[in-house]
Amino acid sequence: MADAYTSHFGINNIPYGIASSSKRPRPQAATRIGDDVIFLAELASHESFKSIAADLAALFSLPTLNAFASQSREAQSAVRTAIRNAYKDNLHTSASENIKEVTLHLPVAIGDFTDYSASANHVLNAGEAIAGVRSFPPAFHKYPVGYAGRCSSIAVSGTPITRPLGQYIEDYTAAEKNIIFGASRALDYELEIGAVVGRPVESGTYLHAKDADEHIFGLVLVNDWSARDIQGLEMNPLGPFNGKNFGTSISPWIVTLEALKTHEVPPPERMGPVAPFMNDAKSVNYDINLTGSITRNGSSTTTCTVGFETMYWTFRHMFAHHTVGGCGLRTGDLIASGTVSGEKEHEHGCLLELTKNGREASKLSDGSELRYLVDGDEVTFEAVVGDGSAGVGFGACVGVVKPARQV
Amino acid sequence: MADAYTSHFGINNIPYGIASSSKRPRPQAATRIGDDVIFLAELASHESFKSIAADLAALFSLPTLNAFASQSREAQSAVRTAIRNAYKDNLHTSASENIKEVTLHLPVAIGDFTDYSASANHVLNAGEAIAGVRSFPPAFHKYPVGYAGRCSSIAVSGTPITRPLGQYIEDYTAAEKNIIFGASRALDYELEIGAVVGRPVESGTYLHAKDADEHIFGLVLVNDWSARDIQGLEMNPLGPFNGKNFGTSISPWIVTLEALKTHEVPPPERMGPVAPFMNDAKSVNYDINLTGSITRNGSSTTTCTVGFETMYWTFRHMFAHHTVGGCGLRTGDLIASGTVSGEKEHEHGCLLELTKNGREASKLSDGSELRYLVDGDEVTFEAVVGDGSAGVGFGACVGVVKPARQV
Repeated sequence: MADAYTSHFGINNIPYGIASSSKRPRPQAATRIGDDVIFLAELASHESFKSIAADLAALFSLPTLNAFASQSREAQSAVRTAIRNAYKDNLHTSASENIKEVTLHLPVAIGDFTDYSASANHVLNAGEAIAGVRSFPPAFHKYPVGYAGRCSSIAVSGTPITRPLGQYIEDYTAAEKNIIFGASRALDYELEIGAVVGRPVESGTYLHAKDADEHIFGLVLVNDWSARDIQGLEMNPLGPFNGKNFGTSISPWIVTLEALKTHEVPPPERMGPVAPFMNDAKSVNYDINLTGSITRNGSSTTTCTVGFETMYWTFRHMFAHHTVGGCGLRTGDLIASGTVSGEKEHEHGCLLELTKNGREASKLSDGSELRYLVDGDEVTFEAVVGDGSAGVGFGACVGVVKPARQV
Repeated sequence: MADAYTSHFGINNIPYGIASSSKRPRPQAATRIGDDVIFLAELASHESFKSIAADLAALFSLPTLNAFASQSREAQSAVRTAIRNAYKDNLHTSASENIKEVTLHLPVAIGDFTDYSASANHVLNAGEAIAGVRSFPPAFHKYPVGYAGRCSSIAVSGTPITRPLGQYIEDYTAAEKNIIFGASRALDYELEIGAVVGRPVESGTYLHAKDADEHIFGLVLVNDWSARDIQGLEMNPLGPFNGKNFGTSISPWIVTLEALKTHEVPPPERMGPVAPFMNDAKSVNYDINLTGSITRNGSSTTTCTVGFETMYWTFRHMFAHHTVGGCGLRTGDLIASGTVSGEKEHEHGCLLELTKNGREASKLSDGSELRYLVDGDEVTFEAVVGDGSAGVGFGACVGVVKPARQV
């Protein structure tokens, strides 16, 4: 991961993160170009930043990106241009350290976390894996179904995930549905992308989907770790809780919509008419290609490759639906897409789909069987726009599974 | 509400809140005795506080109670004693203002909000009102079912609630289940109590129910406003979202467990065995008597009187279940009980139960019909321990319904 990610962090990307190092122990704003992590507060002292207001540049010294994320698109765009110019003029070297020397932190303080279920394929595949039925929830053609997640459990890529304890049905095939307590036997990942809220939305001023991009600072990779056995018992009727709230991983670099602009693609055709505020004739997805892989016994196996253009509901729709009832959005809030899945066998964004809830084993490259995650498995998500030649990508979102605590 | 609440705010209560006034414009920690709001940073300059460490007293100048809430039970108890002594010695007058002069704010910064469904009666009654079936979710006898709520929408008592817009089934009795967009027609309240997390629980160190009181700073009233039509369509399969996230009200004063100590009562008998970490032979509820009322056209009608001792699951159970999977709790987190309902007709903590989802109208004292809330309705929750003679209560949690925004 610490190798040159030239297809991810080229000059066309300029993502934002929070970094520290032994030389710069205070977490602060940074960008990444190639293997250089550039500390922006220092870069901003260069002549090339003279067009950037000092109070804007001062935000780079803060330990989260929230204040910068809340700025206008114009201000952010000017910073992006200044960074690119400084880099081209080779002015970044004294403000840079190699990625290997740097620790990355959560890029924003997240006040609320929402996870949607925006992929039509995931909804159908998951329903089939659990209940044997391919059908949509009653509202899926009108809006993306979502739920609130747990903020305190969101961790940056690299943080290990401890297998959760919980209560679940011992054996669904048995006549007696015994509920037992112990370590989850069905630990899964969910390959997702999340949008970080930039400019806030005041409670009571709802967004139309077509205008929602103005409130998206950028995107990150999300691993919505899920314990399917715990989740399966608790979901009726209030949705996921302990099956999800033990951990969520996000990638450290926020890729801005400006970097993604040239890779906009249309979403799938609509199933039917939607409410006026959800109507977005020019709606966009992004040509982001995601991969999920599992490293077991030192051997890595790609378990999923899928494109984000498969998502039925776009972030614009997710933001609009979120605000229509009167719910405000604050800068730094994370709004995730739900599992990204396509129609094909290699496009399953979680093991629930791939292994039919553990019933149909898949093979890993070390020769072992894959049903759900075992202790020691390292899950890696990566994503890049297009074929990688634009040099815009997300890097990686990684987590290794640690054994459960003693009961 | 600004009248003397002698049965709520006697010398045995000493709740904590955040207050400001024209004289003291900076929001800061306060307590209330009778109609006196006592600003604690000023009171702490008195001789009677000499046993309280200066760094502890300094926390009273902060705009939230989080830092104070995170202190040890012993330190908090010493402060309580010092406040009571200062009041008895009449040392509080220069640090006090009448409640009518004071603005109350959210008492804590809330990083995560969880809402449980801990009342067996509510589960049965709500199920009957919606689906005509009195039955428990599959796990109810093992743990309280819960979901994550929206932090950014939590407001202090007195904040108006705007009727949400949303999408819902036009007419459930019709053969065609048309989904329409508009103002909710089924706006409800939920009468709840919430626990504020004091000492945090590190992610990965799970609580046993019997030890969980150590992490509860105190309790507040909660109105979990709910739009039943929006909620009804969206809940399958991920639980409540826009049907709840437009607004949640809490009372401004946090009543500590120390004030409630003499009013501990046992919870209902267990339905069956539970996992070892949930086992709490000496588990406690509190003898808190709640009332809900609606003021319409200037006339107030009590719609619910119910005791908190009816709750099947206690806060200890809720905290234990919350942490067992690895989810940490941070100081200031709010963990609410879900609707408090008893077995009797006057003990329904929400209109979904009382009016059978709007099908059976109730009468208000102004002569009008009550099915769900209409614009202008003011909902007031109050709660007091025992018969009020101990002088320990929560005061009120109030909200008036404002018309929906224009579509």
